[in-house]
Parts: sequence; structure tokens; C-alpha cells
Amino acid sequence: MQLTVLPLLADRMYREFDVFEVFLKTLKKNETKLEDGDVLVISTKYISNSQGRIVDLDNIQISDEGLEVSKKYQLKPEIAEVVIRESDKIFGGISGFVITSSDNIMAPNAGIDKSNAKKGKVILYPENPYLIAEQLRRKIFLKMSIHVGVILVDSRLMPARIGTSGVAIACAGIEPVLDMRSKKDLDGNPLKVTFQAVVDNLATIANHKMGEGAESKPFAIVRNSGANLTDRKINSLEMAIDPDQCVYVRGLSNPPKNL
Amino acid sequence: MQLTVLPLLADRMYREFDVFEVFLKTLKKNETKLEDGDVLVISTKYISNSQGRIVDLDNIQISDEGLEVSKKYQLKPEIAEVVIRESDKIFGGISGFVITSSDNIMAPNAGIDKSNAKKGKVILYPENPYLIAEQLRRKIFLKMSIHVGVILVDSRLMPARIGTSGVAIACAGIEPVLDMRSKKDLDGNPLKVTFQAVVDNLATIANHKMGEGAESKPFAIVRNSGANLTDRKINSLEMAIDPDQCVYVRGLSNPPKNL
Repeated sequence: MQLTVLPLLADRMYREFDVFEVFLKTLKKNETKLEDGDVLVISTKYISNSQGRIVDLDNIQISDEGLEVSKKYQLKPEIAEVVIRESDKIFGGISGFVITSSDNIMAPNAGIDKSNAKKGKVILYPENPYLIAEQLRRKIFLKMSIHVGVILVDSRLMPARIGTSGVAIACAGIEPVLDMRSKKDLDGNPLKVTFQAVVDNLATIANHKMGEGAESKPFAIVRNSGANLTDRKINSLEMAIDPDQCVYVRGLSNPPKNL
Repeated sequence: MQLTVLPLLADRMYREFDVFEVFLKTLKKNETKLEDGDVLVISTKYISNSQGRIVDLDNIQISDEGLEVSKKYQLKPEIAEVVIRESDKIFGGISGFVITSSDNIMAPNAGIDKSNAKKGKVILYPENPYLIAEQLRRKIFLKMSIHVGVILVDSRLMPARIGTSGVAIACAGIEPVLDMRSKKDLDGNPLKVTFQAVVDNLATIANHKMGEGAESKPFAIVRNSGANLTDRKINSLEMAIDPDQCVYVRGLSNPPKNL
């Protein structure tokens, strides 16, 4: 079955707004429909804008910790301060970027973004992203009588690669990971790496088609994804590995002796 | 424009074979056609099989370095030895996995794979993957008079995430990265993270639809990808960041003092 990805052009919004209402308008504007079984992918930046999750750096008071992180990683002190407030843990960093974890999402600079914000302001990750995704899913069911999955997507960088892919910051109504532990490979052996990052993979291709630039395409519809829809509540730990178990996070800090 | 991804069921192959011939047969079997502008994504495992890049672990002589890596990271000595031979550098590891770099691809265990190989054997990465991709592209042009992009895909893990995504091990005929440095964001500011990982993103969704299990879908056709096709020769450095510049590789080994 052929998977399709349809990005939707939407109005640029300048103050807090109702995402569901704007989505309905966007469907009309694009002369398209959402269908039962579809996965709706939405940019976290758009959600954050709808919530007014924008910070004016001029109003930020810088703590001692903020100053320290600012110096160590050559970040603007106000940015360092916001990063600290928004993250649960700082793992390390290079000049201009720190690697953080917030609500079990590992991201450079706690996901805060200067692009697509007015000068001197930054956009934060959305508040309660799982709740937002679930509310949208329910509104879609009540209004259109269809079951869909909802994914909130942000761009992310991959280790040792140039350019951005996508990561699911939250989701609702869709099984986030495909467990293939009971499946066999082509030779009938049990598979070793046996999970597929379903929502991250759908998020990646949707984000790719949304683009990053001046055209506002904050929604994309993924059809025939093959993903399993569900009514159960999803939480962030289902897609996250404890950093202590992560081949990159722990592995990269555990080099061979002769390095 | 709607992007589509069509995975193709193909015959399982048991000895070295001609990938182009098998691809032509696969198109017929799936009653589909390749079109001008398409991107053809092929599993590296299938390519490796076509080249006979399979190693019998019983025949591996273990070096001192192999023993050392085997002990430090709890790998089977034969596996550790093959990993060392196949990789340019070992960055570190956890129990059962080392992070390596081979031909500018960062991968756990140098990309060697026990799944989909007979017991006691492992599949290596393909030899000359860029040459293979370019040869396929040329054969397609000569036989069908169409320009396509070709991507060879392997599964990969993301930092702190559960499940596999995809990575382009090589490509031909397609611009691997979209440079958006000249573009502006929605507010007219220059974009900060300004590259899109085009071939990795297409590889990820194709790999997702190919699956990992018992059904052999080693080819996928991506249509209306929006990617720029090209005749120039692509090399692996165009998609790779020097690990010393990578926010994960260098960042994770550079923690804050108070950690």
C-alpha cells in the first residue's frame, strides 16, 4: 500500500489561537479532507505560537547557573538561562549548543528556537504537548466521526550528519513504536533491533515536506502509514530510552583505552 | 504536491546477483513503473547480499585488539574483530554495541548485522556503495531514458529514542542536503539550522515502509519528493559532519562541571 504525505498551506498566525479551528479552515483552504486512519502531523512551533509560548529575552533575569552555562558553551546569557529553565538535565555541549533533556526529549538547547520568532524573542516547546495532541484527536472524532493519529513534530539533528530530520515531541491515538520482538527475520531468526520508531519516522517525512522556511505549512496529512491507531493514552517514556541505556549517550562517554 | 512511498515486494536471493536485473523483474512483479524524477531507495542488506558481503564468523582470526574490544564492550570476539576491520574509528560503546565510523558513516558495530543472515554469519555494509548507486542510476537512464535519484538505506538508532529510523549510506543523482542558508524564516530572519537532511529523510520513510521482518521489500519508490536531482558526483562528506564538530559526539563528551 502506497503511503502519501500531503503538507497543507496555512495562514500565518500572530497571536494565540485555537489550533482546531485553524485546522478546519486550513482543510477548506487546501480543498482536502481528513480520512479515517490518517495521521495528522503538526509543527510544534505552530502549537507553541497558538499557546503564546514566546519569551522576550530582554525580560530574562540571569542566574549564576545561567552565567556559568553561558560561558562554558558560548551561549548568549539570556539563551543559556532559558535553556536551563526549560530543561531537566544538561548532558554537555559545544560552542553555541547544549544537549539537554526536557520531558524525556533529548534536544539541542531544550528545543528553544530563534528562527520564526521576532528579533530578541525565542519560541519554547509547547506546554502539555500530549494533552494538546489528545484534545485535537478527540475534537476531530467528535466533529468528523473519524479516528486519526496526531503527532507533534520538531526538527532535530542526527549524530555526525548534516541537516535536519524530525522527531515526535508528542502523539495521541497512534502506537508510537512497533514492537517486532515476536517477529522473525528472512531466515527465521529472531530480530535483534526489534522496534521501529513509527511516530519519529512519520514525523520525519512530514517535517521534511513542511519545510523550514518562509512558506507556512504547519500541518501534514500522512495516509496509509500502516501505523496502528489506538485509544489508549500514550506517554513520553514509550518512545524514550533512559540516556544511561543509550548507545550514543553512554557509548560516546565510554571510549576505548587507546583512543 | 503529495509525496508517495511505494515499497516493492521482491524475491529473496540466496547467492550473488545483478541488482539491476532483479529490480526490473521486481517492477514487473509489482505491476508498477519507475517515472522520471522518482527516487529509488534500496536496502543496503540487499546490495550486500548481491555482492556476497557475508562473513562466516567461524573463519575469523581474532587479533589482540579484537580481544580487547570484545572484553571492554562484551561483544563476541569474532564480532569485535569484524567490527574493527570494518570501521575507521571506534568512538566508544556499551555492552553489546560499539559506536564506529566507517566511510564517514557513524553506526553501531560498523553496520554489521546478524539479522537476515544464516546462523554464525554476519552481513557487512556493501562495498563501493556510491559506485553501486551511480551504476544503477546510469543503467536506469540507459534502459528507461529517465532521470532518477538512487539512495542506499540502512536502519539506524537515534539518540535516546526507542526504535529504528533510516540513514542514507550512499546516493547518486540526488542532492543529498538542501542548503537553505539564503532563505529566510517566516519573519524574514536568516534561518539558523539551515540544512535539510534530504536523503536521510527519504531513506527514513522508505526504510519504514520496507519493514525489517520476514517480508522481503528491499526496494521503495519515492515520488514527488521535491528533492533536486543532479548529474554531479556525490561523495560521503556532503552528508557527514566531522565528529569533532558534532553537537552529540563532542557535546556528550563535554559535560558541565557540576554534573
